Amino acid sequence: MVIVGFGGMGHEHQIKLAGVKELVVKGTFDVKADRQALALSLGLKPYPSFQSVLDDGEVAVVLIATPNDSHKDLAVAALAAGKHVICEKPVALNTGELDEIVAASQKAGRLFMVHQNRRWDEDYLTVKKILADRTLGKFFHLESRVLGSRGIPGDWRKVGRFGGGMMLDWGVHLLDRLVFLIPGRITQVFCKLNYPTGQDVDEGFHLFLTFEGGQTALVEVATCHYQPLPLWLVLGTKGTAMIKDWSLEGGIVGVGALEGDAKPIVAGAGLTKTMAPRTEAGEVHLPLPLVKADVRDFYRNFVAVTQGLEAPLVKNDEVRRIMLLMEAAFESHRTGQVVAFE
Amino acid sequence: MVIVGFGGMGHEHQIKLAGVKELVVKGTFDVKADRQALALSLGLKPYPSFQSVLDDGEVAVVLIATPNDSHKDLAVAALAAGKHVICEKPVALNTGELDEIVAASQKAGRLFMVHQNRRWDEDYLTVKKILADRTLGKFFHLESRVLGSRGIPGDWRKVGRFGGGMMLDWGVHLLDRLVFLIPGRITQVFCKLNYPTGQDVDEGFHLFLTFEGGQTALVEVATCHYQPLPLWLVLGTKGTAMIKDWSLEGGIVGVGALEGDAKPIVAGAGLTKTMAPRTEAGEVHLPLPLVKADVRDFYRNFVAVTQGLEAPLVKNDEVRRIMLLMEAAFESHRTGQVVAFE
Repeated sequence: MVIVGFGGMGHEHQIKLAGVKELVVKGTFDVKADRQALALSLGLKPYPSFQSVLDDGEVAVVLIATPNDSHKDLAVAALAAGKHVICEKPVALNTGELDEIVAASQKAGRLFMVHQNRRWDEDYLTVKKILADRTLGKFFHLESRVLGSRGIPGDWRKVGRFGGGMMLDWGVHLLDRLVFLIPGRITQVFCKLNYPTGQDVDEGFHLFLTFEGGQTALVEVATCHYQPLPLWLVLGTKGTAMIKDWSLEGGIVGVGALEGDAKPIVAGAGLTKTMAPRTEAGEVHLPLPLVKADVRDFYRNFVAVTQGLEAPLVKNDEVRRIMLLMEAAFESHRTGQVVAFE
Repeated sequence: MVIVGFGGMGHEHQIKLAGVKELVVKGTFDVKADRQALALSLGLKPYPSFQSVLDDGEVAVVLIATPNDSHKDLAVAALAAGKHVICEKPVALNTGELDEIVAASQKAGRLFMVHQNRRWDEDYLTVKKILADRTLGKFFHLESRVLGSRGIPGDWRKVGRFGGGMMLDWGVHLLDRLVFLIPGRITQVFCKLNYPTGQDVDEGFHLFLTFEGGQTALVEVATCHYQPLPLWLVLGTKGTAMIKDWSLEGGIVGVGALEGDAKPIVAGAGLTKTMAPRTEAGEVHLPLPLVKADVRDFYRNFVAVTQGLEAPLVKNDEVRRIMLLMEAAFESHRTGQVVAFE
């Protein structure tokens, strides 16, 4: 396999693949000399051009980790040259580009699979288990957040024509996972992108989804947010699950012993009975049912699919649905309206 | 003064008024015998009927703390009988009712003022000061939440025709305060009410507002939420303020020393540079600029207004704007659309 685009993510693939015997990295191609030098220092072959990668008959797989606007052309060319292709997310800039890639994949009879690595996030898989276990009573609302305060990194991710912005960078992950947690059609999409420091691309967003079963979800990404909120909140009629951060701190709080009528509490300038906390006996605290995962299963599955042994864990129609969803989010922000979806 | 409706809030007024020499509680009227007995035990006169309150020429002020659907008829009658009126929130069930009350107030030449007591909440006033001080750089987003897990109290607040539900109960407070924090017209209203346990009335909501200056606000009320989120989050380009709870825990985190490029961190199954935390030197921690307030100033102002000495601190056109805003929120939920406002 050859890694095309040997920046942060390309290098990260190479490190992760060191433990995957099924998929051996032979070389790299990058337009930047320092990255080619890095590859050489790691014992990899720095190919002089993308074409020279395609021309190498010993290369069966190309991994694309370049800026987002180049994914489509590189993927289509690699597939046409008979390579299987792993591609970084977001797969492309719009569904039109993705459709071109999928057509090229089908025409060439070669596999195209997008690296939706965050399906192997243990925080997400723990939420999935909580929902499968029906620990919280009837589930009705979910919140998924990723917050930072450093702005967008000062590379191509800051530039619109390269496919920058937080919706395409982080939104694609959060939405890709979310739809495995809440079944059924998404009926409504409301989205506000934000541009607090006046960048060319969205620096974050609030996205509110309504599902056909009535469940709702709030998805938030921020790069100008200096205080933490939980990564995950899952609300059911009998309890709430919270995962605070990537160290997987958090837990489940649910209904304990039956309680009498609440005693009003002083809250600011008034009293409240409605917002009075439960008594100690009135709630139960449960630990998170932590789930372990190995993201390298992505690569192993990719190889097994090329051998006809497994079905792909990341399907192109799943990726296409999320691309459509992001397009609906952009439309909602642009028009200031709720967008009907599915 | 006579308190009409001597339930939780009515009694709370009586307790608060013990420290206000300008406004003496003479008696009460309530349809429930146990509350009339309570009044008697407190040395107050239990009036046998609402009409007997109106007929008492020594009563200059009537305070209405009955279920929401009765505010309008009681207020109009009291004003017509020459009484000044303090009314619990929400002022009425819709703007039509409020307009009737205001017309009666003007016709009778008597004061009508709504008890928006949460304008004296110290958490809110602290947020107001943070914004006035411009501590956070350019302010762009605010979140205001009140969360509980006990459901709606099992009285009239659970019943639609009595004006129950969380929008009218808590939403009216959070919105009444919010519009003093963000100046200018509200251009868009998006709202999802929720009914997790299948009540007759909304058990909570997410409300997203857009202001003409581009600022946004998320307002959330919940009664089926078992884990805490901050009461307040205020986001500016240079920092974020958080007030966690009614004990006024929280603080401000802002930009410290200039930092170099972020070092990627392991986050779940991948790396992230964008969401890497700041270094210790890269952020500053400031305490909240706590503000003290005395909600009894509401009553003192009321009396001063009746004497022609002060302007009302709670104006009926302010109350009307919030009623219109809640009507827009209900419409947004009902239609599934963004409602253009102002």
